[in-house]
Amino acid sequence: MRLELTREFVENLQELIAGKKTDEVSRILDELHPADIAEIMGVINMDEARYIYVLLTGEKASDVLISLPEDDRTRFLEGLPSDIVARHFIAFMDSDDAADVLGELSDEKKEEVLHFIRDVEQAGDIVDLLSYDEDTAGGLMQKELVQVNANWTVQTCLKEISRQAEDVDEIYYVYVVDNDGVLKGILSLKKLILTPTHEKISKLYNVDVISVRTDTHSEEVANLMEKYDLVAVPVVDSIGRLKGRITIDDVVDVIREEAERDYQLATGISEDIEPTDSVWIQSRARLPWLLIGLFGGIFGARVIGTYEPSLAAYPSLTFFFPLIMAMGGNVGVQSSSIVVQSLASDSLLTKGFSGKILKELRVAFINAIVCSSLIFVYNQFFGNSYALTLAVSVSLFSVIIFASIFGTFVPLTLNRFRINPALATGPFITTTNDLLGLVIYLIIGKMMFTLL
Amino acid sequence: MRLELTREFVENLQELIAGKKTDEVSRILDELHPADIAEIMGVINMDEARYIYVLLTGEKASDVLISLPEDDRTRFLEGLPSDIVARHFIAFMDSDDAADVLGELSDEKKEEVLHFIRDVEQAGDIVDLLSYDEDTAGGLMQKELVQVNANWTVQTCLKEISRQAEDVDEIYYVYVVDNDGVLKGILSLKKLILTPTHEKISKLYNVDVISVRTDTHSEEVANLMEKYDLVAVPVVDSIGRLKGRITIDDVVDVIREEAERDYQLATGISEDIEPTDSVWIQSRARLPWLLIGLFGGIFGARVIGTYEPSLAAYPSLTFFFPLIMAMGGNVGVQSSSIVVQSLASDSLLTKGFSGKILKELRVAFINAIVCSSLIFVYNQFFGNSYALTLAVSVSLFSVIIFASIFGTFVPLTLNRFRINPALATGPFITTTNDLLGLVIYLIIGKMMFTLL
Repeated sequence: MRLELTREFVENLQELIAGKKTDEVSRILDELHPADIAEIMGVINMDEARYIYVLLTGEKASDVLISLPEDDRTRFLEGLPSDIVARHFIAFMDSDDAADVLGELSDEKKEEVLHFIRDVEQAGDIVDLLSYDEDTAGGLMQKELVQVNANWTVQTCLKEISRQAEDVDEIYYVYVVDNDGVLKGILSLKKLILTPTHEKISKLYNVDVISVRTDTHSEEVANLMEKYDLVAVPVVDSIGRLKGRITIDDVVDVIREEAERDYQLATGISEDIEPTDSVWIQSRARLPWLLIGLFGGIFGARVIGTYEPSLAAYPSLTFFFPLIMAMGGNVGVQSSSIVVQSLASDSLLTKGFSGKILKELRVAFINAIVCSSLIFVYNQFFGNSYALTLAVSVSLFSVIIFASIFGTFVPLTLNRFRINPALATGPFITTTNDLLGLVIYLIIGKMMFTLL
Repeated sequence: MRLELTREFVENLQELIAGKKTDEVSRILDELHPADIAEIMGVINMDEARYIYVLLTGEKASDVLISLPEDDRTRFLEGLPSDIVARHFIAFMDSDDAADVLGELSDEKKEEVLHFIRDVEQAGDIVDLLSYDEDTAGGLMQKELVQVNANWTVQTCLKEISRQAEDVDEIYYVYVVDNDGVLKGILSLKKLILTPTHEKISKLYNVDVISVRTDTHSEEVANLMEKYDLVAVPVVDSIGRLKGRITIDDVVDVIREEAERDYQLATGISEDIEPTDSVWIQSRARLPWLLIGLFGGIFGARVIGTYEPSLAAYPSLTFFFPLIMAMGGNVGVQSSSIVVQSLASDSLLTKGFSGKILKELRVAFINAIVCSSLIFVYNQFFGNSYALTLAVSVSLFSVIIFASIFGTFVPLTLNRFRINPALATGPFITTTNDLLGLVIYLIIGKMMFTLL
């Protein structure tokens, strides 16, 4: 049975650690999943965590290590001798995890650890994987997979699979290659089990195999696996030779990170911050966006300053600063958000730039009519001057239309230059939209009061 | 080989359709993946899509149907006779897809279709699944799985698996149950293949099985599968009987939707909008958030109105409206965003309310010191009056501290009442923060000018 993680459970564990009840702690650890142990290590103190860690052995110790947050893992490994890292941790890992872990270490440490890996094949696999860019299929894939030759029989394959399966956690698919290692097709384990053993593999496998190249971007891999509902996808090089495979669990992380990055951009946080980071790191990550707001605000102060005579003459104009700014910002962010989502789900087939802007304009027009009419009625009802009423409604209409165009245009342009379009839903564009709304309002407002 | 989807490819296909080249179109469709056909149907016109659809048969037709966006699918099915829907589409689907599709139809249509399903077992499975809430494990799971009895031998199991596997796309795991159908453990297909056939299953299976209950919330299922890197998880009822399984592809959709919902909330769009929705639907989804901005703006106008005498006396106070509002909004959203993320990754072990607010306060303090000092220097440098300089800096400091507390407190409170905390990063709270910043500024500003 699985133990339930509660605070009482952890407190009880801490008492056992304090009392040095090694046997009991070991027994509890035996029954816990590595991911749970990693979670517990995140909430107990450093000494307690170290006490637990030395009780773990072999594969479980390395599984726990992989489940730890990156910072904790790196700090822990940098403090250990390189031969221990190689033989007690890396030796038990899949090639993709091993490459990820080594990639986090300093160059010097990395070289040392690689030097101490006894299994030459594993060391070679890791070096291969380290050569790929993190954000590509090559950086995501693992070398462990089960492959068979297209010319073999089912019986030979089953024997070969038994041999290869030792290194592979989950098989999912058997990959069929020719004599040069070029991927020819895939075979489901199910089909293999249900087929007589003398049959040739070449008659069984599915040639309609979806694969990615080592240099395919990781987000594209994620989209592909999601679209075609794949649990594993083979990775080939530029001439089609099978190099590795990517399993869905690694892609789930890509999807989660991609989504979180957009949310962080929209809410004004730099990309790489975690809720557990220190006060100092958090302040630093948030300050740049606040400075953008600060400079925008100073710019706004200067703009308003140049209109001081008009504002002194018609002070009621200032009443609607908040309204105009809030609407400009909100409309802009909405438009950008729609574009960001449509870009994320875009294929080569969907229509481009002009179609999106046209559609957005029609939406903006409807919302602009509704909002500026409402504020017109309000101003009339509350007996504000005709000049103010007209200034606010006309400005609001213009601001909504303008912010929509700007909000659509910016992410499309960012995307064209291969910059994450979600940046457009963040504070920089919001602040710009706020200020442009203000400028429009001041120009129109002055005009109305002068004319009427 | 896979065909590449390009606009030229689709235009070529459209020409073939226009020329009624049925054989050629059929040949092309044979080579396309259902997900690709669905994508093509999304960009060609209704008549062309219908032409393609009648050429598809059996499983492929139903796979394409499942890949279509929900709106298109429902419109298409509501227009077909119920017996066709039952026999040509539902008959070829897995139970979870069938239940999802039927769940989208009108109650009357749903009853009719169920009535026409010939396979009584399938109809029963669908009715069972329809009884669960969409957002629970029961609503996500499928009934198709491979289960064996704990008392059987490997040989019996392999035979039984061959029989059951017909209905199951991918096996992943074999579930072991007792005579009452209670889940006892799981068995990997790999282990089964590698073990002599006379061995008893009871000696092989892993009792450490992670399962969910039919009423577990779908987001919890997603978190669990992500944490433990599972490709499939068994679903049991309250007394532990195996009811179905959830595969990772369905959970990927949950993760994606969850992330998109937060992003949409943060950027002021109602939850269920797609970029492909009509202009009218998009306007309607965005208007509520704009009206919030509008009412906030009107409230702002009334607040400023009450300060008209002070503003007429010290018009330079209005210069810094944009700065104060932008900073209040930005800080509030940042704080809420950090809380939302930390709630998402929270477990029962992490510390609550007061710890989070205290940490946030320390971050706010650092940023408030930096920003208010900078604006102090700016104002002194540009020769603004001492009263204005002090008013802006003191207000900015207070606004940053206040917005941080508010921004932390609101999502925590929403979460406590089981409302999505990401709502706090949306326009409503931003607008509130803007306005509260303004009020603080007006009060402090008036005080400074009166005193100094």
